[in-house]
Amino acid sequence: MTVTPPTRDPESYVVGVDFGTLSGRAVVVRVRDGEELGSAVHEYPHGVIDRVLPTTGAPLPPDWALQHPEDWREVLRTAVPAALAAASVDPAAVVGIATDFTACTVLPVRGDGTPLAESGLGDRPHAWPKLWKHHAAQGQADRINHLAHARAEKWISRYGGRISAEWQYAKALQVLEEDPDTYAVTERWIEAADWIVWQLTGVETRNTCTAGYKGIHQDGHYPSEDYLGALHPGFADFARTRLEHPLSPLGSRAGSLTAEAAARTGLPEGIAVAAGNVDAHVAAAAAQAVENGRLLAVMGTSTCHVVNGAALADVPGICGVVDGGIVEGAYGYEAGQSAVGDIFAWWLGQGVPAGYAAEAEAAGEDLHQLLTRKIADQPVGGHGLVALDWMNGNRSTLVDHHLSGVVVGLTLATRPEEIYRALLEATAFGTRTIVDALEQGGVPVHEFIVTGGLKKNALLMQIYADVLRRPVSLAVSAQGPALGSAIHAAVAAGAYPDVRTAASAMGRVDRAVYRPDPARADAYDALYAEYRLLHDHFGTGPDRQMHRLRAIRNHALTAHNSEV
Amino acid sequence: MTVTPPTRDPESYVVGVDFGTLSGRAVVVRVRDGEELGSAVHEYPHGVIDRVLPTTGAPLPPDWALQHPEDWREVLRTAVPAALAAASVDPAAVVGIATDFTACTVLPVRGDGTPLAESGLGDRPHAWPKLWKHHAAQGQADRINHLAHARAEKWISRYGGRISAEWQYAKALQVLEEDPDTYAVTERWIEAADWIVWQLTGVETRNTCTAGYKGIHQDGHYPSEDYLGALHPGFADFARTRLEHPLSPLGSRAGSLTAEAAARTGLPEGIAVAAGNVDAHVAAAAAQAVENGRLLAVMGTSTCHVVNGAALADVPGICGVVDGGIVEGAYGYEAGQSAVGDIFAWWLGQGVPAGYAAEAEAAGEDLHQLLTRKIADQPVGGHGLVALDWMNGNRSTLVDHHLSGVVVGLTLATRPEEIYRALLEATAFGTRTIVDALEQGGVPVHEFIVTGGLKKNALLMQIYADVLRRPVSLAVSAQGPALGSAIHAAVAAGAYPDVRTAASAMGRVDRAVYRPDPARADAYDALYAEYRLLHDHFGTGPDRQMHRLRAIRNHALTAHNSEV
Repeated sequence: MTVTPPTRDPESYVVGVDFGTLSGRAVVVRVRDGEELGSAVHEYPHGVIDRVLPTTGAPLPPDWALQHPEDWREVLRTAVPAALAAASVDPAAVVGIATDFTACTVLPVRGDGTPLAESGLGDRPHAWPKLWKHHAAQGQADRINHLAHARAEKWISRYGGRISAEWQYAKALQVLEEDPDTYAVTERWIEAADWIVWQLTGVETRNTCTAGYKGIHQDGHYPSEDYLGALHPGFADFARTRLEHPLSPLGSRAGSLTAEAAARTGLPEGIAVAAGNVDAHVAAAAAQAVENGRLLAVMGTSTCHVVNGAALADVPGICGVVDGGIVEGAYGYEAGQSAVGDIFAWWLGQGVPAGYAAEAEAAGEDLHQLLTRKIADQPVGGHGLVALDWMNGNRSTLVDHHLSGVVVGLTLATRPEEIYRALLEATAFGTRTIVDALEQGGVPVHEFIVTGGLKKNALLMQIYADVLRRPVSLAVSAQGPALGSAIHAAVAAGAYPDVRTAASAMGRVDRAVYRPDPARADAYDALYAEYRLLHDHFGTGPDRQMHRLRAIRNHALTAHNSEV
Repeated sequence: MTVTPPTRDPESYVVGVDFGTLSGRAVVVRVRDGEELGSAVHEYPHGVIDRVLPTTGAPLPPDWALQHPEDWREVLRTAVPAALAAASVDPAAVVGIATDFTACTVLPVRGDGTPLAESGLGDRPHAWPKLWKHHAAQGQADRINHLAHARAEKWISRYGGRISAEWQYAKALQVLEEDPDTYAVTERWIEAADWIVWQLTGVETRNTCTAGYKGIHQDGHYPSEDYLGALHPGFADFARTRLEHPLSPLGSRAGSLTAEAAARTGLPEGIAVAAGNVDAHVAAAAAQAVENGRLLAVMGTSTCHVVNGAALADVPGICGVVDGGIVEGAYGYEAGQSAVGDIFAWWLGQGVPAGYAAEAEAAGEDLHQLLTRKIADQPVGGHGLVALDWMNGNRSTLVDHHLSGVVVGLTLATRPEEIYRALLEATAFGTRTIVDALEQGGVPVHEFIVTGGLKKNALLMQIYADVLRRPVSLAVSAQGPALGSAIHAAVAAGAYPDVRTAASAMGRVDRAVYRPDPARADAYDALYAEYRLLHDHFGTGPDRQMHRLRAIRNHALTAHNSEV
C-alpha cells in the first residue's frame, strides 16, 4: 500500500472500528457530514477457533467457537493506521474513536482486564473468549429458561420468553460446571464489546446495550442471587462479583485514549473513546434509523432487526427489549432471523446443477445473477411453491432452533431458480411475521430500512417491498456498523449533543428505493397466507414433527459415530 | 449389423414385442425354457407428438400427446427381423407372436381398422392416436367421475373411486366435444394394444385387460347408455357402437398371422397371434408373478403394481380391479405411483451442483453412483429429512394429480445426496402405503417382486426391503414385458395349457435378493410414521394447501401468458 502523507485540514474526524466474526474494519469519517474518507480491513489470523486450541492443538468438542484476543488487538494496530493513511487525514485531527463488536462474544479476565487465555491458562479451552456462535451451552440455557419460567422471573418476558445459549449466563455457567478452576480465577466476565474499550481507555466500563440484551440487566438489576444460586450454588454471586459495574449509555464517553493505545493506533492520546456497542445496534445511527418506528434490518448471512419504541411492550418472540439499548430515551427492540443470506448461499452451493454453472460462466455471471435473470420476471406464485425459512432454526418469533426448512409444491417441472425464488420469498415472509408481531405487540413500525450485504439484491428488495406492502429504504453506507461507531465517537467527543442529532448529520439513507406494487402485493398476500399455515402447522401446532426428525437424526448419527 | 445366417434347429420359438412410449422392442425366446436368444429395439421416428401436428405443423394445445401409427408398424418391419437375426433363429421355427402396449393409448379407426389419421383426416389433431399421457381431457374425466358418483354407478368402486383422464372415455368424449365431425366418422375406438393385433391378424379383437382397466368393462358390461347419454346426448351409444366386441382372454389366440404381416415381419404366415396386452400386466408372467399374492412392481420412471387375488375386494385408491385382467381365473389388481425414477432423475438433473459433476467425472462415475456412494452408509434417519413422493401427483392411493412434492427437515448442512436418499425413501414409503392398502382391503401380498430399470439400484432395493419389512425378489429378465409377451405367444400357440404353466417354465425370478435388516426396518418404521403424518396432512386433511398452490400457479401463469 502506498501511504500518502496526511494533509493538514481544519476539519475534525472520528474513527469507527467494527469487530466482525472474521475480521475488523476501521473507517475514518468527517464529523461535519459523515463523509467516509478511508477504511481498512484486517482479517483475524486465527479466525473462528472451532477445531483445535491454538496453544496445545487439543481438539475442541462439537459446537464450540472461540476467538483470540490478540487478533482483536491487531485490528487496532493495523486497520486503524491503514484507514487513516487511506483517508489522507492528519491523525491529529481525529477527535474520537468508537468500536462495535459481535455479541454475545464474552471472555473471562483478571481484575486488570488481562484475558485468562493470556494469563497462564492458555491450555484450558474455557479460559478463551467464547464467540457469539459458541453453541455448546444449550443444556445450561435450557435450565436457565426452565427455572426462569418456574419462578416467574419478570425479566424473561423481555426476551421473548427465552434466554439464548449464546448469551452471558449460559456460557459462564458452562465454565463453572465444566472447568470450576478456571471459573474460580475469573475475576470479571466481560463482553468483548467492553473489553476492547478497556484496551483503549485502560479502565473497565460496561455499556447498556450488551448489559441489557446479553446480560439480562433490566430495570436496574441483574437476575437475583436467589435465582442464580438455584441454577448452581456456586453461581449465586456471579452477577454481583463478575458483572456488576455502572453502565455507560451508548454514545457516552467511556474514557480517554491511553498513551499505549495511542501508540498502537497512531491516534492522539487523550481523545474520546465511546462506550462499547453491538454491530447491528450501532448501525442504526448510520442509517438514520434511530427515531422511533424506523426499523433497521441488517441483512447478511442472517438478519437482525432493531427498532426503537417509546413504550415498553411485551412482544412475543423478540430477542430482547432494552431501555436505551439502541439510543438513550427509547426502548430498543431486537428481533432476528437465524439464516437469510446463508439460505440463499446454501441453495446456490448445493442446489444448482452443472449446466447452470456452465451457462453462468459463459454469460459472465455468477449463479445468483443467472438464477435472478431466469426467475425475476415470473409472475408471483408462478412456481407453485411455498417454503419455510427455518434452515437454521427460527430466532423470532418462535425462538426454536430445532425447527428446520420445508419446501412444498415441488413438481417434476420445478427448476432450481424457482426454488431459489421461493427461498427469497420465504425470508420475506419471515420478516413480515416479525414486523407484524412488533406492531401487534404495540411497537409501531413506520419505515423499513435495510443495511448489510443483501441490500444490493434488487430482486430480494422488491420482494420485501411487495410482501411487506411497505417501501424499502436503503442505508447508503456499505459499512454501516463502522460508520455507526464513528457517529457514536463524534457524540462521545462532544461534537454532537446526542446520537439522534449526530445520526441526522452523519447518517445517510435513501428513502423508499423500492415501492410495493399493488398487484404483486395482493398476490403475495395469498402466498403469505400459505406460509402462515405451514408456519403454524410445523412451528406451533401440536404435532412437533420437526423436533422428532431432529431427534431421530441426532440419535442416528450419535449411535452411528459411537459404533465407528 | 452383421446378419448371421439362421441355424436349423429342432426347438420352437416365440416372438414378444413390447411397444413402449418412445420405442418398440422385439425379443426371440425359446419356448422350452424362456431363454432369450436375441432382441432388437426400434425408436419411433415421431416419438411423442406433443408440440406440432406432423402433417400440418399446427401447434398442439398444452397437455396433448399423440403418436403416429406408422411408427408402430415400423417396429414390426424392423425390430422383429433384427431380433430374429440377432438370435440366429430360423424364422420357420417361430410358432407364435404376441404384443404388449402402453395403455390407455387409443385411436379412432374406420371399420376396417384404418386409423382416421391415415384416412383423409390427418390435418385434424383429434383423428390421431392419443398416447397414454395425453392429459388434455381432465375436464371430461372430472364430469365422468362426478356423474358416476352422483348416480352411484357400481363400477366406480372398481377403480378406486376415480376414472382417469388418461382412459378411453375421457379421451373419446373430448373428441366428441371438441371435434364432432371426427367423432362422427369414428367407426371404432380401439386401444393400440388391440389395433396392433388387428395389423397382425387382419381381424378386430379386444382383450380383457384393456377392456377392464381402461374401458370400464365390469361384470360383462360397459357403462350403460343411460349413463353415457347423461354425460352427453351424442355419447349414449359410444360403447355399443365403438367398443362392443367379444373379449379375448389374455394368452388366447386372437388369430393367425396374415400373409401381409408375415411378409412385413419375416415370420411364417399362419402362426398364432396372441390377444393384446399391457406392458406392466404382461410382465407378471416373465417374473413368475402370476400366482395370487405375488405382487410385481414395474419400477421405472413411474411404478405400476400388479397382483392377483382370488376374491373381488374393494381397495380404496387402486387404479383398477379386473376379472382376468392379468391371468384368467383371478382378479387382477393394479395400483401405481405417478413418478419414481422420474423423481430421482429430476433431482440428479436439477439438484446436484457443478462440484459434484466434476467429482463424478474424475471418479468415472455417474451422478447416481456418486450420490449413492456418498450416502449409502449413512444411518437411517441421519439426514433428518422426510419427503412426499408426489412430484407428479399421487396415482394410488389418493388418486389426486394436483398433489405435489414436499421435503421437510432441511438445514444449512443438508447435502444433495441426503435429499436424494430422502427421495428414494419417499417412493418406498409410497409403495408401503399401497401394499398396506391392498392387504387391508383384503388382497394378500405374499411376495414383493421388482422388474424394470430400477431393479439395478441396489441401495433403492435394500431401502424397499427395509421399509416394507419384506424380502425383495427380482425378475431376471432385463426386458420383462417383451419376455412376458413371448410367454403369452407360447400359450396362444398351444405350447402350454395356460399362462401360469408357461410362466413357470419360461419366467425367471431371483427370490429374496434383498432381505430386510431388523434394525434398519425399526428405524424406518419411525420415519414411515412421519411420512404418514405428512401424507395425511397434505393429502387427506381438511386444508387443501397443495390444491390452492396449484391453482395459484395456474392462475398466475395463465394471466401472465395472456398478457405477454
